[in-house]
Amino acid sequence: MNYKMMGRFIGKILMVEAVFMVPAMLISLWEREFAAVKAFMWSLAAILLVTGLLMGLCRGSKNKFYAREGLACVGLSWIVMSLLGCLPFYFSGVIPDFVDAFFEIVSGFTTTGASILPGVEGLPKGILYWRSFSHWLGGMGVLVFLLAVSSMGGGDNGYTMHLLRAESPGPNVGKLVPKMRKTAGILYLIYILLTVLDVFFLVLGDMSLFEAVCTAFGTVGTGGFGIRNDSISSFSPYIQNVCTVFMMLCGVNFTCFYLLLIRQFKSVFRDEELRLYLGVALGSVLLIVLNLRGFYETLGETVRHAAFQVATIMTTTGYATTDYELWPGFSKAILLGLMIIGASAGSTGGGFKCGRVLLVFKSLRRSVQKIVHPQKVQVVRVNGQPIDEKVIQNTNAYLAAYAFAVSLSFLLISVDGFSITTNLSAVLACFNNIGPGFEMVGPTCNFAGYSTFSKLVLIWDMLAGRLEIFPILILFSRTTWAHR
Amino acid sequence: MNYKMMGRFIGKILMVEAVFMVPAMLISLWEREFAAVKAFMWSLAAILLVTGLLMGLCRGSKNKFYAREGLACVGLSWIVMSLLGCLPFYFSGVIPDFVDAFFEIVSGFTTTGASILPGVEGLPKGILYWRSFSHWLGGMGVLVFLLAVSSMGGGDNGYTMHLLRAESPGPNVGKLVPKMRKTAGILYLIYILLTVLDVFFLVLGDMSLFEAVCTAFGTVGTGGFGIRNDSISSFSPYIQNVCTVFMMLCGVNFTCFYLLLIRQFKSVFRDEELRLYLGVALGSVLLIVLNLRGFYETLGETVRHAAFQVATIMTTTGYATTDYELWPGFSKAILLGLMIIGASAGSTGGGFKCGRVLLVFKSLRRSVQKIVHPQKVQVVRVNGQPIDEKVIQNTNAYLAAYAFAVSLSFLLISVDGFSITTNLSAVLACFNNIGPGFEMVGPTCNFAGYSTFSKLVLIWDMLAGRLEIFPILILFSRTTWAHR
Repeated sequence: MNYKMMGRFIGKILMVEAVFMVPAMLISLWEREFAAVKAFMWSLAAILLVTGLLMGLCRGSKNKFYAREGLACVGLSWIVMSLLGCLPFYFSGVIPDFVDAFFEIVSGFTTTGASILPGVEGLPKGILYWRSFSHWLGGMGVLVFLLAVSSMGGGDNGYTMHLLRAESPGPNVGKLVPKMRKTAGILYLIYILLTVLDVFFLVLGDMSLFEAVCTAFGTVGTGGFGIRNDSISSFSPYIQNVCTVFMMLCGVNFTCFYLLLIRQFKSVFRDEELRLYLGVALGSVLLIVLNLRGFYETLGETVRHAAFQVATIMTTTGYATTDYELWPGFSKAILLGLMIIGASAGSTGGGFKCGRVLLVFKSLRRSVQKIVHPQKVQVVRVNGQPIDEKVIQNTNAYLAAYAFAVSLSFLLISVDGFSITTNLSAVLACFNNIGPGFEMVGPTCNFAGYSTFSKLVLIWDMLAGRLEIFPILILFSRTTWAHR
Repeated sequence: MNYKMMGRFIGKILMVEAVFMVPAMLISLWEREFAAVKAFMWSLAAILLVTGLLMGLCRGSKNKFYAREGLACVGLSWIVMSLLGCLPFYFSGVIPDFVDAFFEIVSGFTTTGASILPGVEGLPKGILYWRSFSHWLGGMGVLVFLLAVSSMGGGDNGYTMHLLRAESPGPNVGKLVPKMRKTAGILYLIYILLTVLDVFFLVLGDMSLFEAVCTAFGTVGTGGFGIRNDSISSFSPYIQNVCTVFMMLCGVNFTCFYLLLIRQFKSVFRDEELRLYLGVALGSVLLIVLNLRGFYETLGETVRHAAFQVATIMTTTGYATTDYELWPGFSKAILLGLMIIGASAGSTGGGFKCGRVLLVFKSLRRSVQKIVHPQKVQVVRVNGQPIDEKVIQNTNAYLAAYAFAVSLSFLLISVDGFSITTNLSAVLACFNNIGPGFEMVGPTCNFAGYSTFSKLVLIWDMLAGRLEIFPILILFSRTTWAHR
């Protein structure tokens, strides 16, 4: 393992984090929240100290950087970034327990939105801003950001590709343009554009700028931390609809937006993952509206709540406008299904991803056809392009890893003795970076009831889910560290 | 498709069914249950009519018989066998609704043991015998039986191998001996031996012969239909322990028993699947005993109930000695995990199978190692033998099919509006051929509350689970029927 290069890399990540923590501190300063300002200052000092140590100790070494280092680096940097990123919560006394504070920031960076706070109204604004901003930073990925703004010493070699692959969600993240740095830049530009548009439309709906920015961070990063105790429920229907639209937009593969920008409308229109994503969303809204007959007063209200909740769960955001826990069983089952499917590959959303569902389904169909025509060579195609067998194998490996991780986590947190539905949905909500689950972790509740042990398991789930398991799994493999 | 050969084949299956229905009728005659005798006679007439038609219409054609025909044949024969096998329930008025009767016999043949009957005490004995016997016939497989006793016209060609593969549970069913017919014969001999031993030990514990035979059918076939309303609860601790031992025995790969018979003790001792199976079972019992402190009066009672419930769920039998619904959350979570893992490949038990868990885990470990050493060629080994990549691919395909089938079924039966835990465990209990689930389908409850539509979905699950999906999936594939 190229520890020195990894160390320097993590140092750079922490510098980005420090830079982005400054605005939060300034907001606290402006609002005269002096306890919070002090907490931010101590946190910044800690981050700079660690950065300095890493940069100082890890000089030299320009050796090769392989996929394993890329993955381990991404895994480690997210853990370190979270350990330091939670300090403002801890130092300010907003969250007096360190594991709770860690849980909260991991939930932020991984865009989960699961909270251990019973309420957020009345918290220092700087803290609220940092909490929401963590979604934005984690949504597109801090490493992708780093790739976009710095040359990372070494140009566009495999190094950057490994990193981008490790942090970007989805089975087949490709380069948009030949240069990785430019790809990362384009992704961030689209991301910023969506955020600005979202803020604009939210401010139009009588939100204050602060509220709009925080809400947009949570929406565009598909995170879900709100600034009111009842999430989005008490905002106007217009605001709710704006959120629905932007959540759905951010669950789309960002490559589609790039293709739209360069006017390749046809390839977007024909994209099979996009069709599946929109099809599942529309179908779910329709079925839930039918199932909810008589639950709300008007059809309009029913459609609004159904669309919002489908969008929030499918894109793995986690905002809420209504307590879906009270919905009939069929609607809840649909939401549970959406929790697993998730958003598109290459979006800021989490979950198993529509692209993977497509691949698994197509390779399954091929298995059946192979029985019927054993001699015929059958290639799995997506969007007309043949898919490499390796991609299919990786997708199947991912499914297996997903099943193992979810089952094991479920078993571990069951020690706390809560119900099966609570535990299963808690694991799914964390692993798929959604936020709320069912019953005791439903949309009106929070994760505070779990023991410290269970919270650590759920933290692992959030990180493993956001980074798609392997960067975290590799940290636990003996082979990784035994290698010379 | 070779329809004629398929038709003749299904005809032969039905003849076996008819032969085995006769003892049930004789029991009813002996007990002077004349309504039941009449029902059996009408049922036999119907079976013989269909058999005659099939045999008459499907004469000739000795063409080749491919894997697709084998699979489709097995799928169809189980459906037809069940449609006719439920007639005694229906004609005798014991189960007045046809879909309910169909559900009950599918549950029997697939060794699920899920019932729609609120109670069984007082039912005609012939009917009870037929109900329990369906487990025994389905446990090792009626086609395997047919292979064992008849030459199937054509000797030991691919034909018989395809059929044996399609009906036997597990990822890698091999030939024990070069001749398929002999393999099938050996499997049945071991099966009969286990049944006789079980009856012997049960009779020693003061069970009547009738009770012992019925209970043994349910135990050795890992079915779970009881002859008392409270399953095994009101029998003596001795009887309960005998059941535990025989359930565990029948969840072992039958190849292990064959190896014991030919004195290859070492290969049995080193068998990785056997070790996993026993390890998981022992570990689960231990954890549950720890978790149940203070729940029962003595440690002995705790161990007995824990061992029984672990055995009944893991081997997918479905008997019960206690209402595990009242156990604490962690114990229930362990049972839920066991529901999915299931018994060993090549046993009469269902579930995902320990052998598959082993393969999925090993191939996953290889995926992680491949990241670390991308150049190194890594082979997955079980018991020291390299595993063909095709087997691994098939296992992954099975996992995908399993996930799809369970998710879709869950969604469909949610229309009835029951809770998430009820629906999820109902699907798992049916698909993995266990029987009881949690909450509304817990060990003291039954499946009568579901709508006809949901029952049909669950019937599909039981068949797909017993036949390991593909024989049933292939019936729903356009390619199968379009082929010429």
